[in-house]
Parts: sequence; structure tokens; C-alpha cells
Amino acid sequence: MIIGTVVGSLWATVKDPSLEGLRFLVVRPLDATGAGTAETVVAADPLGAGVGERVLVAYGRAARHAIGRGHDIGFQSAVVGIVDRCELQDRTVHSHQDDDTV
Amino acid sequence: MIIGTVVGSLWATVKDPSLEGLRFLVVRPLDATGAGTAETVVAADPLGAGVGERVLVAYGRAARHAIGRGHDIGFQSAVVGIVDRCELQDRTVHSHQDDDTV
Amino acid sequence: MIIGTVVGSLWATVKDPSLEGLRFLVVRPLDATGAGTAETVVAADPLGAGVGERVLVAYGRAARHAIGRGHDIGFQSAVVGIVDRCELQDRTVHSHQDDDTV
Amino acid sequence: MIIGTVVGSLWATVKDPSLEGLRFLVVRPLDATGAGTAETVVAADPLGAGVGERVLVAYGRAARHAIGRGHDIGFQSAVVGIVDRCELQDRTVHSHQDDDTV
Amino acid sequence: MIIGTVVGSLWATVKDPSLEGLRFLVVRPLDATGAGTAETVVAADPLGAGVGERVLVAYGRAARHAIGRGHDIGFQSAVVGIVDRCELQDRTVHSHQDDDTV
Repeated sequence: MIIGTVVGSLWATVKDPSLEGLRFLVVRPLDATGAGTAETVVAADPLGAGVGERVLVAYGRAARHAIGRGHDIGFQSAVVGIVDRCELQDRTVHSHQDDDTV
Repeated sequence: MIIGTVVGSLWATVKDPSLEGLRFLVVRPLDATGAGTAETVVAADPLGAGVGERVLVAYGRAARHAIGRGHDIGFQSAVVGIVDRCELQDRTVHSHQDDDTV
Repeated sequence: MIIGTVVGSLWATVKDPSLEGLRFLVVRPLDATGAGTAETVVAADPLGAGVGERVLVAYGRAARHAIGRGHDIGFQSAVVGIVDRCELQDRTVHSHQDDDTV
Repeated sequence: MIIGTVVGSLWATVKDPSLEGLRFLVVRPLDATGAGTAETVVAADPLGAGVGERVLVAYGRAARHAIGRGHDIGFQSAVVGIVDRCELQDRTVHSHQDDDTV
Repeated sequence: MIIGTVVGSLWATVKDPSLEGLRFLVVRPLDATGAGTAETVVAADPLGAGVGERVLVAYGRAARHAIGRGHDIGFQSAVVGIVDRCELQDRTVHSHQDDDTV
């Protein structure tokens, strides 16, 4: 499970039928300094997170549980929480990226 | 689940029988700047994606679901969507790599 | 399974109902020199680890076992041990980051 | 699932009994330029791949399927295909590393 | 499945009860040059490997099989083999790190 910042959305017309109607976000994992890593992950979002918000992303069975469409589906990562506050030792990271205080 | 760009295809004559007749693509994951990472993944493609297209790749049970050959098969990653549009904060990434606009 | 240092906590009001009442820690994996990597992971903590402590983090089925809420839950990483002592060849890493001796 | 080059073999006398009689290869994943990454993976090989050949490596259930010893075994990665040809946009990567043409 | 060098051990008093009595090693994965990567993994060791030895580490179901305590346990990586010899193209890596010959 990771914490990351929502950096975008994506749309796909040609897709596995089990992805129909889901919202997909591009998430950039948070690194140890509170900044983002170079990589991205894509997660189905049942919670309505917006760009710039910090989210918890889970994988596999946990993601399928969070989406609630059973286990015969063609995706395996989902937003399972929208982070209100994240304290990293010497800094607090608020939900929105541009609210960070040191 | 990741988003990446199809960068190639591969052919294998000697393989597990369960891979027979599947199309395999080499995909380069998208990084946080909208460029590709240094790594590649290989995914079975039931959707007909072409080189240069952005795709969603899922793993494990989700990939097996997308291929639709049951769970006793010798692969574990599959293209589950062809991305029409991907908005990364300050830029839009279209389906084809050479269409990117900033 | 990894060993890492607890570097923070996080709070999420909007979340999958199965995450209710769990404590979530941000953990920085230990690298081969005894320092922390650039990445972070988030883990549910049933053991009461504090910031600065070294912990063992497990994933998937092992994490769900450690939390003890069954397998239909929306998370997949958990603290499964608080490390008293970790000996890395030429150095001993104690439980607290600031106790390290070389 | 990844594509990589076989860079070596290994032998282990003390091992889980379920590994008895299997051949283990060290594989170096291919990066986006057609070169190898810095990391290696180890895979059981039921197909007879040789050093220098490009192979497809799968994990988990897919790997156990390819080995064909059921699911109660102590390994989780296997060679599932020997790559004849891999086209990476502007170059063709043949099966043997030293055959690469640009 | 990876090959790595045992670089240390760890002890944890506060832990999931299913970890009781297991021996935990810190392992540094081998990179493509025969040196160690920057990252570490932790594995339960039922085989008695010592610091400096090369080991095979498996994850998930394979690791639980190797430990032999069933599938309701709070860990997911285990030593499944102690490597006698590993040949990496132009060099042989013996079991002990300090025996390497080029």
C-alpha cells in the first residue's frame, strides 16, 4: 500500500468490459522527503479524489474489495483512502499538495 | 496497474502451451513527467494495441481475467485498456506518443 | 517482507469502510548500508510502533492475517514485528534510529 | 511478466525439497533501450534456455502453472517462453544477445 | 525469486504470534555485475544460512510452502535454497561472498 498524489486522470474507450464506468487516476507515489517519485501508478477510484489530493492506493485482493465488483475483474489497484493529513517526522503534509508546510 | 507506451512486440516459438496464439507487447511505463521509465514490462494483448499507443497494463488475477482463458495459464500481465487521453496536471498525453501536447 | 523505519503517520476520513479504526504508518525501507531508501510504503499497524522504530512490514495475505479482520478488506500491508536489534555485518542497528552504533 | 537475457545459472544443494531437479537461471531484465537493467531475477526453467538467450519470465500462479508441479512448491518465477525476435521500435533484438542489429 | 547475499539478522520481541520461533535474515539482492543492490529484503530462514552466504529467496505462496506452517501466517518471504555456485557469464560466484573469483 502506498501514499501518493493524484497527478492526472485517463480515459480509455477500448478496454476490458469489467472496467466500464470506473474512474482511473494517475498517482505519483510520495518519497521519503515528502516529494513525488519518478514513477506513476494507475488506480481505479471509487472515492472521488481530485488532482492534487493525497491518496492511499492498495493492490490485488484489497483493491478488488474496495471496488466491490467481485474478483473477476480486469484491474488490480484502487484508491482506498483520501489522506487528510500525513506527518513525516519534521513536516506535515496536508491533503493538497500546494498546502504543504515545513 | 500501470499506464505505459507500447514500444515493441515479441515472438516466441518455444513457450508454455498456454501462451499459444497470444500477442505479446513490450510496454514502457510512463513516468511522472509523461516520459517513459528505463524499465519495460511484457503484456499479453487481447485488445489489438499498436506500437506508440498508450495502454493500461494489469497483473495477476486481473490479467488472467482480461485474457479469458481461465486461471491455469503461464502468464500474468495483460493490456486491459487502450488510453484515449491522459491528463497529467499541466499537460495532455494523447493516445499516440507523437501526438503529445504541452 | 522488508525492514524499515517508521517515519510518519497518516489520517484519512474518506476511506474504504474496512480501514475504519486502523492505524496507518509511513515506513521508509532500510537499504544495504543501514540508511533509508528514497521510497516509502504505508502499513496498517496492529502492534503500536512509534516514529523512529524499526519494523517488519509484510504484504498481501500475510498482512491480512496480521490485522485479523479476514480477507475481504481494502488494504494489503501491515507491520508484523517491531525490531529490537538488526545486525548488518559490520554494524548493529538498534530499534531506534538515533541509537545506531557503528 | 518481463523479457530478459539469461546471464547465468546456479546450483543449490541445500534447498526446499520442492526445488529438487529444477534448473535455475539468472535473468537480467531488458530495459527500454534494449540493454539490460542493473537487477537480476532467478527463474526455474522448464524450456531449456541457454546463456545469452532472451526469455519471458512469469511470476506466481503463472510460474507454478508453467512448472507443472502443482501449487504447493517453494518457488514463484519461471521461464515461460524463449524469445525468437523482439522488435523495439527502431531496432530488432534477436534471440541471442550478440546478434543484435540496430 | 531472487538470489542475494545474507548481510545480517534481526530480532523482534513484539511481533505477530505466527512469527514466533522463526529466524529472520536480511538479504541483499545480487545485481547484474555480481555485486549487491542498494535495497534489502527480509526473509524467514528454515535452512540455516549464515551471513555472507548466497541464498535464493521466494515470496508469497512459495515462501509459505517453504516454511511449512500453513497459509495463515504473517510473513511472505523465505530462504528456499543456499547457493553453492552461481555462474554469471564471465565470472563464478561461490557461496561465500569473499570467495568470488573473476
